[in-house]
Formats: sequence, structure tokens, C-alpha cells
Amino acid sequence: MTELGVPMDAPQPSIDPLLALTAKGMDEVNAVILSRMESEIPLIPQLAGHLISSGGKRLRPMLTVAAAELVGYTGGAQYALAAAVEFIHTATLLHDDVVDGSDLRRGKAAANIIYGNPATVLVGDYLFSRSFELMVEAGSLRVLDILSRASSIIAEGEVDQLTAQRKIETSEEHYLSIIAAKTAALFAAACRISAVVAGRSDAEEQALDDYGRYLGVAFQLVDDAIDYDSEAAEMGKGKGDDFRDGKMTLPVILAYAAGTEDEKQFWRDAIAGFRAEDEDLAEAIAIIARHGTVEATRQRAADYAQKAIDALSIFPAGEMRSALEEAALFSVARRY
Amino acid sequence: MTELGVPMDAPQPSIDPLLALTAKGMDEVNAVILSRMESEIPLIPQLAGHLISSGGKRLRPMLTVAAAELVGYTGGAQYALAAAVEFIHTATLLHDDVVDGSDLRRGKAAANIIYGNPATVLVGDYLFSRSFELMVEAGSLRVLDILSRASSIIAEGEVDQLTAQRKIETSEEHYLSIIAAKTAALFAAACRISAVVAGRSDAEEQALDDYGRYLGVAFQLVDDAIDYDSEAAEMGKGKGDDFRDGKMTLPVILAYAAGTEDEKQFWRDAIAGFRAEDEDLAEAIAIIARHGTVEATRQRAADYAQKAIDALSIFPAGEMRSALEEAALFSVARRY
Repeated sequence: MTELGVPMDAPQPSIDPLLALTAKGMDEVNAVILSRMESEIPLIPQLAGHLISSGGKRLRPMLTVAAAELVGYTGGAQYALAAAVEFIHTATLLHDDVVDGSDLRRGKAAANIIYGNPATVLVGDYLFSRSFELMVEAGSLRVLDILSRASSIIAEGEVDQLTAQRKIETSEEHYLSIIAAKTAALFAAACRISAVVAGRSDAEEQALDDYGRYLGVAFQLVDDAIDYDSEAAEMGKGKGDDFRDGKMTLPVILAYAAGTEDEKQFWRDAIAGFRAEDEDLAEAIAIIARHGTVEATRQRAADYAQKAIDALSIFPAGEMRSALEEAALFSVARRY
Repeated sequence: MTELGVPMDAPQPSIDPLLALTAKGMDEVNAVILSRMESEIPLIPQLAGHLISSGGKRLRPMLTVAAAELVGYTGGAQYALAAAVEFIHTATLLHDDVVDGSDLRRGKAAANIIYGNPATVLVGDYLFSRSFELMVEAGSLRVLDILSRASSIIAEGEVDQLTAQRKIETSEEHYLSIIAAKTAALFAAACRISAVVAGRSDAEEQALDDYGRYLGVAFQLVDDAIDYDSEAAEMGKGKGDDFRDGKMTLPVILAYAAGTEDEKQFWRDAIAGFRAEDEDLAEAIAIIARHGTVEATRQRAADYAQKAIDALSIFPAGEMRSALEEAALFSVARRY
């Protein structure tokens, strides 16, 4: 048995069915993304393209396309909206890299390292503005309402996370509210807007919102677990970034709560920024392994993934629903 | 005679009539601004309030309020839209301060100096998102179209300016296209949107757009002139910032074009960043005074102000039209 209670020889959940079912739609989305990141100022497509072409999974716009398909929408607005969602996400990544002073993003030098902070901030602003232009073209004030609110909530979550940085007393509840804002709000909106343009019921809108929100929480929990997972592959971002930035994520919060007095002292020093060497990271990973808090975090993510799956139960069974269910399980099982 | 051809004893043009006519409306706008910069994350209103309460003139939202009055609109949407315009402007100022590494803004320590770059970037994002929420509430897709396009154009202009920084070969035409984008686009949109919510003719929309655009160019030209004006008061930003940042503004472009070979060499070195001391700034101001390019820049601004005034001619004469005309003259005559 793995820590998720899945027999070791069971087939691993995969994102491939979702990728296959959305492939055609994502071709449309990618065409919109490429045409709309253009500008007469050459630095803009250069810098935006550095991140956009860097092999991100485009999970959020994929959810918009998948949700449109799930509710039987055929109108075409989902492609522009999915591109808008990806632009919002890209803008936040560019600004995050400036905020965190990141060196790496998706395994490549971060945009701020190559192009500098000023251009990175401004191209983020450009993509953010372009996302609203795309939404306007889709023509739904309700969609604009949902995505502008989601954008405010993301920014609030990012500021909240910044405020909580290097604060050992950050509670589990506070951490969950941060990731609900900075990550899950866009997942929820990305799913919900397809029900809106399709004119489906409030119940279906809410079900898609719930699916996205729970999936987003699960996704972020696993991201945070991987940063301390001794068995996980290197992620795109530099391993140990959260540790060195003094970010209080769930594996640390749980390990601190369960820790001996010596371990508590280690965490206080480390989160405050006084233990930031490679051997300190190794010690953090060892303490976390001792208390099993990567597994506990993954288990929490699995609970959220199950809630995401449950939210889809109001939709008739079918290929797309199954693919979205499996994507939720995949998001929890992934090790990169 | 002054350099604008106005007799010295003529009454100086004033912004006071516009301030008086928009005072009641601006109370409404300020109430929206204060309520919408709130957040449960205390750092957000703290940081936003640092800039928003720092005595900016709120010229852009004032134009929205004035334009609504000029076209006889009484619906009330202009207050939320004016606040949205101010939030876009504030967001760009916050990001500009990060981009330029500014120490001062409106005579106070810039937000990035007090709160750091990360929080300044993120609170800018928050205000930008909030501006779109406000527009959604106003309920006009056309207004959203106009302001989202203006926002993209501003970001493009900022990137363009960044690309042109420290480039002595920047042409006057290129400089004018930069300020049309980074400054005049928001002035134009701020005026136009009131005609849109009022449902006025394309001709009135265009007239207000023209007024705002020409005024915005005039305003930026004078800002750029003041930075080298030996007679002007210190501005809110640190005097000589443009010089030290190697920004090619019109007083420099004209002085370089008219310069002797020695002066040209001075400008090449200065714009490249090798002459950034106080005595270098003094020399720059002296060369500019020799060639009269502050006055030439002000004259160019006066021409744009006249175009702004001419654009208003399709509206019936009246208090508000006169106040807007005088505001255009004021923007050119100001020395701070």
C-alpha cells in the first residue's frame, strides 16, 4: 500500500485522459495565447514567451476547456476565456518570481534573472491587462465579475503569504486560507466560468466551482509537500525554495506542532532565516521524514481531491467526468 | 512676456474652477476609493493608503467626474469608474516605483522604500484587480473594453520606455509615442468613459477622448520639462530622477540634437550612466538652459493644450467647459 491507501500494483492515476480529451480545444487556446501575447514592443513577447513556452502544464485553461465540454457548451467563448485564465496565472508567476527573488521557474532561469525585475513586473501587467481584454471580447459581465474577484483574492492571498513569511506561529487554518486565495480561487474561477457562458444552473456553476477549488487546494498542498519530499524529483522551481524563503507550509506547520523542543528550536531558527544552508535543508527534510508530515500533507490533499471528485457527482457519468476525476487523483499522486 | 507668449500681468490659469465644480463629485469618488482599498490583510490598506493619501491631485478621476457633468450625465456610475481610473493610476505608480527604484514619490518616501518591492508589486496588483471589479459593477462592457485596452497600452508604453532607457538615439517621435501610451492613454480613457455611460454620440466620445489625450501629452511634457527647469520648484519625485535614470525626455532630445560636439559627448556619457553626480545634473541643466529646450518643451505642451481646448468646441459653452479649458492651460503653466 502507498501512503494514499492505493495498492502498489494498482494503475497510477494519470492526467493523460484529460490531456487527450482537451487536446483539440487546447490547440485553439494556445493559438489565442500566442496571438495575444504579441506586441510591437519586442521585449514583451520575448519575456512572456520565455515563461509561456517553458513547458507549463496549462492546467488552469485546460480546466476551462474541460468544464465547457462537461456541460455540453459549444459556443467557442471558452477558448478566449481559457487564454485569459492562463494570462492571469502567467502574470502572477512573473510577479511571484520578482517577489520571491526566484532563480528558477519550471527548471529554467526565471524571467527576472534574464530580463530583470522591471521588465518582469511590467510584462506581468501587460498580460494581466490583456486577460481583461480577452474577457471583454467573450462578452459576459458575470465572467468578468468572477475573474476580477478571483484576481483580487489572488493578490490578497499573495500579500497574506508575504505577511506570514518567516512567522513560525502561522496556523494551519491561516495557511489553508492563504492557499485557498493564492491558488484555489483561480482554479475555481477557471471551472465556473464555463458553466456561466454555457448558461447552466447555479447548482452546476457551484459544482464546477467546488471541483476547481478543492482541486486547487489539493494541488498546492502537494506542491508544498514535494518541496520537502526526499523521494520526489526536483521540481521546476529550486528544491528547498520554500524553506529558504521561510514560508510556513503544511509539512513544516505539522512538523513544528509535533516536534521535540530541539526540533521546535530548529524550526524557529530556520523559518527566521538563520538556518538556510544545504545541510539545514537536509536536516529539515530528515525531521519532516521522522514525523511523516509529507505523507500527512499528501493525505490531506487526497481528502480534498475526493471532495473535488464528489462535487462532480451531479454531472452524468461520461468520459470527461472520469477524466476530471482521474486528474484530481493524479494531482495528489504526482511526485514532480 | 512669459515663454508662452502670455503677458506677465495676465491672470495665471488656474485649476481652481475645475476643483470647485468637481468637489462634490470627488467626495463621492474618494469615499469609493477608501472603501475599496480595504482588505482583511492589513498591509494592503496601509501600503495603498500611503500613496493614496499622499496628496496626489487625483486629476484623472476628476476628469471622469468633469466629463460626466459636461455631457449632463446624472446616473451615478461615474464615481465608481473614476475610482477605477485612480486605482489603475495608483497601481502603475506603485509598479513604476519598483521599476525605477524610486526613493521619493510626491515628496514622501516611496512605498517600495518603506514596504519593500514585493509588497509594493502585490498591492499594485490588488488595486488593479479592484479597479476591474469596480468597472464590472458599473455594468458597461464598452467601458471595460476602453479601460482594459488603456491598461495594456500603458504597460506597453512602460516597457517601451524601459527599452529606450539609456539610449541616446531615441527619437522625438519615439518619445512622443511612449508618453502617448504611458500617460495620455489613461487621460483619454478617463474622459471618454463618461460619454459612454451617458450614452452620448460617437462625436462626443471622440471629443472627450481627444481632450484627455492631448491634455495627457501636455501634462507629461511639462512633467519632463520641470525635471530640468532651473526655475521650477522641486517636484514630488526627486529632481533629476529622469537624468540619473538615463531617460530620454524631450528637453534632452532637443538639447542633444542642437548640441555642440562636446555637448553631444556629454549627453552620450550622461544617458549611458557615466555622468550621474550632482555636478553632472547641474551641467545638464546649464546646457538645456543654453539651448532653451525647457521652454521649447513647454511650447510644445502649450500646442497640445490648445488642441485639447479645441476638442471641446463641440460642447456648448458653460462653466464646466471653461473650467476644463483653463485646466489645460494650467497644466502647461504649472512649475511643480
